[in-house]
Amino acid sequence: MVVSMKYVIGIDLGGTNIRGAAVSLDGKILSREKIFTEVKKGKEQVVKNLLTLISHLRESMEGKVPLSIGLGVPGIILTEEGIVVKSPNFPDWVNYNLKADIERGAQTSVVIENDANAAALGEGWAGAGKGEDHFCVLTLGTGIGGGVVLNGKIWRGAVGMAGELGHINIYPDGRPCGCGSRGCMEQYASASGIVKEALSEINSAEGEKLKEAIQDHGGTLSARLIFSQAESGDKYSQKVLKKAGQVLGIGITDLLNILNVEIFIIGGGASEAWPFFIDPLKEEIKERAYEYTGDRVKIRNV
Amino acid sequence: MVVSMKYVIGIDLGGTNIRGAAVSLDGKILSREKIFTEVKKGKEQVVKNLLTLISHLRESMEGKVPLSIGLGVPGIILTEEGIVVKSPNFPDWVNYNLKADIERGAQTSVVIENDANAAALGEGWAGAGKGEDHFCVLTLGTGIGGGVVLNGKIWRGAVGMAGELGHINIYPDGRPCGCGSRGCMEQYASASGIVKEALSEINSAEGEKLKEAIQDHGGTLSARLIFSQAESGDKYSQKVLKKAGQVLGIGITDLLNILNVEIFIIGGGASEAWPFFIDPLKEEIKERAYEYTGDRVKIRNV
Repeated sequence: MVVSMKYVIGIDLGGTNIRGAAVSLDGKILSREKIFTEVKKGKEQVVKNLLTLISHLRESMEGKVPLSIGLGVPGIILTEEGIVVKSPNFPDWVNYNLKADIERGAQTSVVIENDANAAALGEGWAGAGKGEDHFCVLTLGTGIGGGVVLNGKIWRGAVGMAGELGHINIYPDGRPCGCGSRGCMEQYASASGIVKEALSEINSAEGEKLKEAIQDHGGTLSARLIFSQAESGDKYSQKVLKKAGQVLGIGITDLLNILNVEIFIIGGGASEAWPFFIDPLKEEIKERAYEYTGDRVKIRNV
Repeated sequence: MVVSMKYVIGIDLGGTNIRGAAVSLDGKILSREKIFTEVKKGKEQVVKNLLTLISHLRESMEGKVPLSIGLGVPGIILTEEGIVVKSPNFPDWVNYNLKADIERGAQTSVVIENDANAAALGEGWAGAGKGEDHFCVLTLGTGIGGGVVLNGKIWRGAVGMAGELGHINIYPDGRPCGCGSRGCMEQYASASGIVKEALSEINSAEGEKLKEAIQDHGGTLSARLIFSQAESGDKYSQKVLKKAGQVLGIGITDLLNILNVEIFIIGGGASEAWPFFIDPLKEEIKERAYEYTGDRVKIRNV
């Protein structure tokens, strides 16, 4: 560890965990930390946990102050003002100036950004989008976050609400979504969507094996349990993940027809199920997109 | 008519008609001409008709040569090269250098452009998008053309194929589409989509009145007949147009979630049915979009 090195801190504020890293100015991860978010204990506890994580990362850099802290937050974020307008994971954070609280606590400049936009910026800077002008990022977490990069910049739209890719409509009369619509992509292909899809026919004969696995796991179904069941050969779990892939393929074909972006970067926890959804995803694009544009699409897992 | 005035010619090459206008440099239409396309007579006849229309427009300007000719063509167009890669309305035009043929015949510089992109450029220059940074244009013709304007410029994407808004997916298992997919927006909300939708249940009791109207009109159903039947109170025709509006509303909500563009300009022949589809369209956006962004959307008819 070169402790004289200048570095920044990057933090992903999730509904369950806060993950952070000290990162060199050329994009190398120098150290990592993780702490529980503890959403249920309220805003002050979450801020306290963020500050604890930051101080752990500083300790790992022998106390050196980072140049800046970048904080990815799910929801509607006004980056310039540093305000969380609304966040699905933090229902009591309404027009909350998170940036001010962290800057005060950490005594360092802070940039907050929508988490999927932050992921897109990161992939463009040092990841799977490096050197690419145009790409979309889909993060399959509790919901689906989206980031659209055009000409090397995040496309934010008229009031900063662009890139809500999880809410591309797939089934107009499908499952109700937190956004107010029905049948959005994230209702089938996010971690929580995969769980909902699995539960929808769990009482059928097909669902029997997964149902037993749920009972063996204390009665709770997680996306991870569905992946592990799919890995151990359960056809029903595989079918659920196949559908997630098809849904992603339909949504990506929409993006291709609208934006003619060729690079799609898929990350987030539920992207662990990649081996089960990537082929159906690609088949859907092949079937639905114009041949010329469809053949040029690249899907990257991060 | 000030014949000393500098002017340009704008032409819309449709599957049935070629429409052209002499236009002043500040966007005023000085004269209009229309001629049949005569697609079935082949490429040479279509080119001849284009040149006839151009010469009529020149005559209307007392023989004065236009500064330039802009030609909107449906399909995949390489604007810089002046090549029609592929066009649904002109199946024999494959990698055809239309620009060269018209320049040779008219002895004037020609710019060819995808018709919906041309519409978007026109609306931005002198129409419903004037002064707006970001907007989408949907032209409801035989198909649905699309144009996406971001930061005042047509967004063309990686290989010039962006803005295929007619192929936003609405019903994954819906009606087959010429693009290879199923259930695309244009299968329900273009002129031909409206006709297909009307025919789908024409033999039901509900469809009886429209069926009679078809017989009264020589056995052929056009979108226009559906509009006139809707106007005269036929519930079935109204239902078909309501569905077109709902489908447009779903597609526009996708665009809103992806791009956060707030202005949507709807034109083309089938937009005549505006009074029957605009309310269902807006209801769908209200129901499905985030309240904050949905409330800001403006839909303009041209």
